[in-house]
Amino acid sequence: MGFLPGQMMQQQLTISALIQHAAKYSHDVEIVSKRVEGDVHRYTWRDAELRSRKLAQALTRLGVQPGDRVGTLAWNGYRHLEIYYATSGSGAVCHTVNPRLFPHQIAWIINDAADQVLCFDLNLLPLVEKLLPELKTVKHFVLMTDRAHMPAASSVPNLLCYDDLVEAENGNYVWPEIDERAASSLCYTSGTTGDPKGAIYSHRSTVLHAFASTQPDAMNVSCQDVILPVVPMFHVNAWGLPYSTALVGCKLVLPGPHLDGKSLYELFEQEKVTMSAGVPTVWLGLLNYVGENQLKFSTFKSTVIGGAACPPSMIRAFEEQYGVEVVHAWGMTELSPLGTLSRLKSKHLDLPLEEQRRLLAKQGKPIFGIDLRIVGDDGHELPWDGAASGDLQVRGHWVIGSYYGREKSPLMDGWFPTGDVSTIDADGYMQITDRSKDVIKSGGEWISSIDLENIAMAHPAVHEAAAIACRHPKWDERPLLVVQLKPGATADKAAILGVFEGKIPKWQVPDDVVFVSEIPHTATGKMQKLKLREQFKDHVLPTI
Amino acid sequence: MGFLPGQMMQQQLTISALIQHAAKYSHDVEIVSKRVEGDVHRYTWRDAELRSRKLAQALTRLGVQPGDRVGTLAWNGYRHLEIYYATSGSGAVCHTVNPRLFPHQIAWIINDAADQVLCFDLNLLPLVEKLLPELKTVKHFVLMTDRAHMPAASSVPNLLCYDDLVEAENGNYVWPEIDERAASSLCYTSGTTGDPKGAIYSHRSTVLHAFASTQPDAMNVSCQDVILPVVPMFHVNAWGLPYSTALVGCKLVLPGPHLDGKSLYELFEQEKVTMSAGVPTVWLGLLNYVGENQLKFSTFKSTVIGGAACPPSMIRAFEEQYGVEVVHAWGMTELSPLGTLSRLKSKHLDLPLEEQRRLLAKQGKPIFGIDLRIVGDDGHELPWDGAASGDLQVRGHWVIGSYYGREKSPLMDGWFPTGDVSTIDADGYMQITDRSKDVIKSGGEWISSIDLENIAMAHPAVHEAAAIACRHPKWDERPLLVVQLKPGATADKAAILGVFEGKIPKWQVPDDVVFVSEIPHTATGKMQKLKLREQFKDHVLPTI
Repeated sequence: MGFLPGQMMQQQLTISALIQHAAKYSHDVEIVSKRVEGDVHRYTWRDAELRSRKLAQALTRLGVQPGDRVGTLAWNGYRHLEIYYATSGSGAVCHTVNPRLFPHQIAWIINDAADQVLCFDLNLLPLVEKLLPELKTVKHFVLMTDRAHMPAASSVPNLLCYDDLVEAENGNYVWPEIDERAASSLCYTSGTTGDPKGAIYSHRSTVLHAFASTQPDAMNVSCQDVILPVVPMFHVNAWGLPYSTALVGCKLVLPGPHLDGKSLYELFEQEKVTMSAGVPTVWLGLLNYVGENQLKFSTFKSTVIGGAACPPSMIRAFEEQYGVEVVHAWGMTELSPLGTLSRLKSKHLDLPLEEQRRLLAKQGKPIFGIDLRIVGDDGHELPWDGAASGDLQVRGHWVIGSYYGREKSPLMDGWFPTGDVSTIDADGYMQITDRSKDVIKSGGEWISSIDLENIAMAHPAVHEAAAIACRHPKWDERPLLVVQLKPGATADKAAILGVFEGKIPKWQVPDDVVFVSEIPHTATGKMQKLKLREQFKDHVLPTI
Repeated sequence: MGFLPGQMMQQQLTISALIQHAAKYSHDVEIVSKRVEGDVHRYTWRDAELRSRKLAQALTRLGVQPGDRVGTLAWNGYRHLEIYYATSGSGAVCHTVNPRLFPHQIAWIINDAADQVLCFDLNLLPLVEKLLPELKTVKHFVLMTDRAHMPAASSVPNLLCYDDLVEAENGNYVWPEIDERAASSLCYTSGTTGDPKGAIYSHRSTVLHAFASTQPDAMNVSCQDVILPVVPMFHVNAWGLPYSTALVGCKLVLPGPHLDGKSLYELFEQEKVTMSAGVPTVWLGLLNYVGENQLKFSTFKSTVIGGAACPPSMIRAFEEQYGVEVVHAWGMTELSPLGTLSRLKSKHLDLPLEEQRRLLAKQGKPIFGIDLRIVGDDGHELPWDGAASGDLQVRGHWVIGSYYGREKSPLMDGWFPTGDVSTIDADGYMQITDRSKDVIKSGGEWISSIDLENIAMAHPAVHEAAAIACRHPKWDERPLLVVQLKPGATADKAAILGVFEGKIPKWQVPDDVVFVSEIPHTATGKMQKLKLREQFKDHVLPTI
């Protein structure tokens, strides 16, 4: 070997070990799913593990080999969870596809991944029927429902019933030993430009990410929690929660496609949910519902918010009005996804509340296993002073080395360029100032679109705001603020611009405000600024 | 490769990454050491990392090669911490030796490990001078102190000054890339019989153990904590705290050799310690001191107790009198050491306090990465009913596969036999009933010596109690209780036996009680029952 070896047991870090641990040591802990079919389904980690083994048998019977991709078009539910474990656990690859993408994009992704099997939820059958002519590699179509809900007829050839497949097997299946470097799961980034690219995770990266994410300073996942991932299982594996909840053996609540404020609130209360995770957009709906109906949360105590910068006004609403701790996080598909989380250090505990809030509004510091740096245009590292803003690069155990099926490495000197622009302060707290493609460059100086949006969001009439670059003959670019008002609310340009006073230098204040009925979002809940820039490309600023 | 690989960054799990992360993201967080020299030393994780690099340079200059063992005889202090990281980080092996062992045993261990360098604390110089004639492999002796404290003369040849070695270097040292399977550290078990055996850990096992130990359901280590390991750094790497505190970047307080109640209490208060860990014996001294002086803890909120079964009366004292949560844990040198910890599950949170206590008095459930089973005399698995008691076996990522330098595997079917006898209940909570060699077998039935001791400890006059087997013509063995009373306390046999009434079946109550001025302990704080059995081998039970 060329070195003195430690003499420890040799075991691979495998995904099947997670659900085996849960089934053995937390066998009676519940997994509760709000089904697409409309009812609530409950069973335990032991049941989930047994059905995952049966599904692994069924997939093998369908001809799925180690390394083969099995696609899913599905919401958060127990059958989706079984597919996670049955595929990865048997050596196949779980390929989650976002059903909210354009059909043509979905078909492109499934073809690119060369999925052999496609499993999908009942309400997505019409979508699959529409995709059918474009799909080139799928040999078996599996409808994730029971016999009673199978359609009388469908244009999908040989449509298989998920529950029939599972229930036909006896469960006499031993999870195979798998090399921890083997591919376990696949998730495509829905880039706003260019073809989507796949991040293909390994068993090792997934288990290390699960270990790291349970830490008190990360997602703080405990067996005493009841966790409801609002973030979809097709969105970077619901930020690893299907794995980390098994690792600790806690109760898992899966909301299906029912993500409106009322449905979520009722599920939180009925199942005594203590912890959740999701993108800012979905929380807007929940907060509005709870606010309008003057409700409160009985058990909900903390939520991780990421996927897009969380407006400080949302953090404040959760904490001051509902006593729910918000943990601001940053990550991306290429990071499995966890990169940083905003948690106070010991020395911050005595700071005034306002200063703590300012820190917690940042995206936070990296957990062990992830390393950060920011670089300038010339590729040189920038100082960690909380002011210098540069391209954010990362490296670590759960960061991709290359995209699925592509040899060309996106890395620069071993670092992955995130496409985000950020600062890092002396304590290592990172703050995203922009996506590099969304930066507004006025007279050679960068203006942070996220700063402008966060300030605008503090106006009580504003539902959501997007700051985009608008051409300007003198300054090259100037900020234009696009605002969607709350239903029934009114505000004019002067009122909106009034909230910027004293908060940022005058030259950074938007030159104009336009009102829209709806700000467009990507399928993963991010504002589609490309679309807005296109829409307002001929907008004439009053300052010209 | 024979499988479809994930396309993630390839990084090794290395110990140097831990301190680099702390130095970068928690650079100004303090490490405070009560020095052997008498004063208090403070510096930061950044300082510690720099000095570790300098020490790595110095060790290389002394001829230490990757794989070479560097021995330590030292208390918990910053120099010991630097040795941990400088040795493992440079590819050498950190071999911690327990200075409380018999000198002959110490020499045997150092020779067996073939240590090239021996580093030791100032007050252990007389010990090393005594060992000198027996040491066969040590080429360099390093006194862990500064120039001012170096002795004028010593029988140790070419005695080197630790601080001189470190300060002579410039720190221009890059931590090398190391195969994660390489040996990182070595710790001998001080078996009560036979020669000591070494557990030689790898970088991988150490980092995985650190990840696992930080979990909320494990040691719950956060960057908001101030952690004082009472458990010595020569006792299974202070249960991994030198690694897990770096992983999260929290403040670390190292008490040196000053483990009496008064010294510990003052350090806890001065440094605002929130969390600690140690064996039951050391807590007796602290609780006595705090009780006698009617003090309370200002910041101390939880402690992990392991190494030996913790009497329920101690858990009760910590929690009811001082508001300190006790987390009962079980592990061993061969497990790095964490195996199980006692934490309530979600479903237990509504149980009456007494039932929660009964659960928490067990050694708990395994963290992910560790798997348990109990087997009977015939090697078959026993049921998990909380009643059946059998040989406890474990397997996992941080369990040894074989002992240092020995080819013969101690494993049985891939499981490590712990030598402990335990039950496991339906929820996976394990409870040690005995060391297999300490079991009392009366009329063919096992009596748990630990049960008897815990009951006896509830008597207010009892400082410590040991239950041992005594020959009996009819029953083969019967329990004899050996009691050490608290200073100034009085109690007779009838009073002691009175506490057993109604707590266990009559046939399990000890046949006799003997009082001793001191119950002997091993160097790691365990009761020496072998010695007691020898001492009382001719004791005549009144029931004969």
